[in-house]
Amino acid sequence: MTFAPPYGAPDGLLHRLRDAAAGRWDAYCWHPFVQQLAEGSLPLPAFRRYLTQDWLFLIQFARAKALAAFKAESLEALRSKASSLNALLSEMQMHLNFCAEWGLSEADVLAELEAPQTVAYTRWVIDRGLAGDILDLEVALAPCTIGYGEIALRIAAHPGRKRVGNPYEAWIETYASLGYQALASGAATRLDRLGETHGGAARFASLSATFSEAARLEADFWQMGLDAKS
Amino acid sequence: MTFAPPYGAPDGLLHRLRDAAAGRWDAYCWHPFVQQLAEGSLPLPAFRRYLTQDWLFLIQFARAKALAAFKAESLEALRSKASSLNALLSEMQMHLNFCAEWGLSEADVLAELEAPQTVAYTRWVIDRGLAGDILDLEVALAPCTIGYGEIALRIAAHPGRKRVGNPYEAWIETYASLGYQALASGAATRLDRLGETHGGAARFASLSATFSEAARLEADFWQMGLDAKS
Amino acid sequence: MTFAPPYGAPDGLLHRLRDAAAGRWDAYCWHPFVQQLAEGSLPLPAFRRYLTQDWLFLIQFARAKALAAFKAESLEALRSKASSLNALLSEMQMHLNFCAEWGLSEADVLAELEAPQTVAYTRWVIDRGLAGDILDLEVALAPCTIGYGEIALRIAAHPGRKRVGNPYEAWIETYASLGYQALASGAATRLDRLGETHGGAARFASLSATFSEAARLEADFWQMGLDAKS
Amino acid sequence: MTFAPPYGAPDGLLHRLRDAAAGRWDAYCWHPFVQQLAEGSLPLPAFRRYLTQDWLFLIQFARAKALAAFKAESLEALRSKASSLNALLSEMQMHLNFCAEWGLSEADVLAELEAPQTVAYTRWVIDRGLAGDILDLEVALAPCTIGYGEIALRIAAHPGRKRVGNPYEAWIETYASLGYQALASGAATRLDRLGETHGGAARFASLSATFSEAARLEADFWQMGLDAKS
Repeated sequence: MTFAPPYGAPDGLLHRLRDAAAGRWDAYCWHPFVQQLAEGSLPLPAFRRYLTQDWLFLIQFARAKALAAFKAESLEALRSKASSLNALLSEMQMHLNFCAEWGLSEADVLAELEAPQTVAYTRWVIDRGLAGDILDLEVALAPCTIGYGEIALRIAAHPGRKRVGNPYEAWIETYASLGYQALASGAATRLDRLGETHGGAARFASLSATFSEAARLEADFWQMGLDAKS
Repeated sequence: MTFAPPYGAPDGLLHRLRDAAAGRWDAYCWHPFVQQLAEGSLPLPAFRRYLTQDWLFLIQFARAKALAAFKAESLEALRSKASSLNALLSEMQMHLNFCAEWGLSEADVLAELEAPQTVAYTRWVIDRGLAGDILDLEVALAPCTIGYGEIALRIAAHPGRKRVGNPYEAWIETYASLGYQALASGAATRLDRLGETHGGAARFASLSATFSEAARLEADFWQMGLDAKS
Repeated sequence: MTFAPPYGAPDGLLHRLRDAAAGRWDAYCWHPFVQQLAEGSLPLPAFRRYLTQDWLFLIQFARAKALAAFKAESLEALRSKASSLNALLSEMQMHLNFCAEWGLSEADVLAELEAPQTVAYTRWVIDRGLAGDILDLEVALAPCTIGYGEIALRIAAHPGRKRVGNPYEAWIETYASLGYQALASGAATRLDRLGETHGGAARFASLSATFSEAARLEADFWQMGLDAKS
Repeated sequence: MTFAPPYGAPDGLLHRLRDAAAGRWDAYCWHPFVQQLAEGSLPLPAFRRYLTQDWLFLIQFARAKALAAFKAESLEALRSKASSLNALLSEMQMHLNFCAEWGLSEADVLAELEAPQTVAYTRWVIDRGLAGDILDLEVALAPCTIGYGEIALRIAAHPGRKRVGNPYEAWIETYASLGYQALASGAATRLDRLGETHGGAARFASLSATFSEAARLEADFWQMGLDAKS
C-alpha cells in the first residue's frame, strides 16, 4: 500500500528514513493487528495482551527518555527531554486506568512478565542510545512516537474502518486526537532538524538501519499481541 | 530433575542464585534443544539456526565484555576483562569455521537477521550492565558462561546420550573440554567473590531476579533454534 | 573541629561514610570559603566566581539526575528521580536570578568557561554513576546535596557568624531554610535505606573511597572560588 | 607560532579541528612544559609529577578505549579497539618501568592521588564518549594520541632543542619514534574517515568545541606538572 507520509519535511530525514524502510514501515503501520483494530475485529485477548505489554514497554520508554535527557547537548534540550519524561510518567497513570476499563487490574498488569518482543525492542533502543549519540537514540525512538500517529491516520483513512460499536474506538481516538497528532508532528520536525545538525545525510546508511530495525521490532510487538492465546 | 551444581562454593552467591531460579535454570539447562543435542536427534535446521544466531549473539557478548572492562574497578580487573575480550574475539573466528563445517558460509552467517530472542537477551544484558554495577552485569552474563559448562556436564551424565554418530559431538566436546570447564569454574569462583565484595547477600532479591530473567531469555534462545523451519 | 552529623541514622551508611572521611569532610564543610561566607568576609570576586561556576555545575548535576532516573530500579524510583530533576531545572532559573542580583547577567554566566574543578567534580560523578550502580551514584552525589545542608547548619552554629550586613545572608538562608533542610535530611534517609538494600556494609571500602573523593573534589571547588582574582 | 599539521588530509576533519582551535592547540602543543622538555630545563619535580599523574591518566584512558570497543559499530571496529586496548595495557607496564628509572617506585605511583586536572580531562573524555557517539569520543581522545606525536615533532624542530645530556631524551624519543609517529598518523587517518562517515562537516561546531576543550584540558595537565612543588 502507499500512504503519504503525514509528518516532516519532504526532503527531511524522516521522509528519507521512511522511504528507505518502506516495506518494514508498512508491515508495522498496517500490521494485521492494526487493521483488525480499525475494523473492530481484533480478538479481545490480543488487545489485552498488547495493553499489558505496552505498560511494561512504557516503563522502559521512560528510561529511554531519561537517557535522552542525560545525553542532551544544551540546557534547552535537557529541559525539553525532562518535560517530556514527566509528561510520559503522567500519562502512564492513564494507561493503568485504561487497562482497568478492559478488566485488567493494576495487580494483573504489574504481575505480567515482559514478552521477549517487549524486552527486545526496549533494550535495543536503550543500547542504541548508549552506543550512539542523541540522533541515533531519536531515530530508534521515532517509529514508536511518530508511527503511532501515522497508524491512527491510516486507520482513519481505511475504507473498512468500523466506528460504531468498535471496542477499540477509545484507543484509536487517543492517537488520532489533535494533541497526539501535534506531538507526532513536532517529533518529526525535531528529528528533521536533528538530522541537519548531526550529519543525517552522511550517516544515512547507519541511521536507516536503525530506523528499519525499530520498525521490524515494532511489528514483532504487534505480532506478539496477535499471537495471544484466548 | 535434580542436578548437583558443579561450580562455585556451596554457600556462595552462584549456588543461591541457581537454587532460587531452579525451575527456570532447569528449563534452560535441560531444554528440549539440549536433550536432543545429547541424543543426536535435534533436526539439523534447528542446529543451523542456533549456530547462526549464536554468531550474532557473540558479537553482542563481546560488547558486553568491553562494557565490563570499562566498568572494571581496578587495573587488575581491567586487564582481566580486556584479556577475556580478546580471547573471545579469537574464538569467534573458530565459530565461523565451525559454521562452515555445517554448510553455513561466512556470507550466510553475516547476512542473517538477529532473531527477536537474540536481540532480547543480548541487549537486556547490556542494559543490566549499564543500569547496574559490575556485579549486576556479571550475574546477567553468568547463565551463558557458566550455564554452557553445566549443560555439557548434564549431557555427559544423560543416560540417553548418543556418542557414536552424534552429529553434535564436536559442539558437546567444546563445552565438555577441560579448558571450557576450567573457564566456567573460574567464572563461578569470581562471581562468588564478587558477591562477597559487592553485597551479594543484601542485594539478593534483585540479583536473583536478574539471574532468573537471564535463564528465561537463554531458554527462549534455545526455543528459537528449535522453532526453526526445516 | 567536631560537628555532630545532622542527618541520617546513627548506624546508617551516611554516618559511616562521613566518619571514615572525617578529615576531608571537615575540610569541605568548613572550608575557608565557607567560614568567610559565615563571617561576611569573603571577597566579592570569590563569591561571583563561585556563583558562575555553580551554574555550570548545576547543568551537569541535572544530567547526573537524569542518569539516576535512567538507572532507577522501579517505576516509583523513576518517578521520584524525574520529579527531582524537574525541581532542579526550576530552581536553576532562580539561580540565574540570584546571579543577576550579584551583577552577573545571564550572558556573563553563559559565557563562562568551566573551571577544571567544575569539570573534575561533575564528570567524575557522572562516570561513577555509569561505572557503578545507583548506590555508587548516590554516594557520589551525597556530599553536594547533603553537604550543603550541613554547611548551612555549621554556619548557623558558628560563633563568629555575621548576620546583619552579611552580603551572603540570602545564600546562607537558602540552605538553612526548612525546605532545604528537609531535602537534605530526606536524601540522607534515602541513602541509608539504599545502603541497606544494596549491600552498603559489604561494599563499604569502595563506597567510602567514592564519598571521600567527592568531598575532596567539593573542597577543590570552594578553593577555586577562593582563588578568583579580583 | 605556526607549525604545519603533520597528520591527516589537508581537507580532512583533523585539519579543520586543529585550525579552528589554533590558539588552544598551540598552547597545548607548545606549552612551557614542552618547551622546557625540549631544552632540558624542566625541573625534575615537574617531570616526576607529570609521570605519576600520567600513569593515573593511562588507567582512565584504557577505560575510554574499552568504551570505544563497546561503542564499536562493526566487528572489525570492535577488534581494532580491543587490540588497541590490549596494546595500551602492555605499554602501561613500560610506563611503570620508566617511572622506576626516575626514582618513582611502583608503590609511589600507585599511592598518588589523582590531581584535579587528571580527573577533569579523563572523566570529561569518558562523559563525551557516553553522551555522544564514537566520533565524539574519538575527537575527545585525539588531542592526546595525535597531539603527543605532533609535540615530538615540534620538539625535534625546535632550534633550542638540547639533545646531549637532556634528561628527557628517552621520553622525547618514545614519541618521536617511527612506531609512535605511525600510530599518530594512523589515528589521524581514521579520524578523517570517521568524519566522513559520521557527518563531521554538519557536526563541526559541536566537534570543534569538543576538540578545543580537550586541548584546553591537556594544557591544564601540563600546567599541573609545571606547578609541582620541588
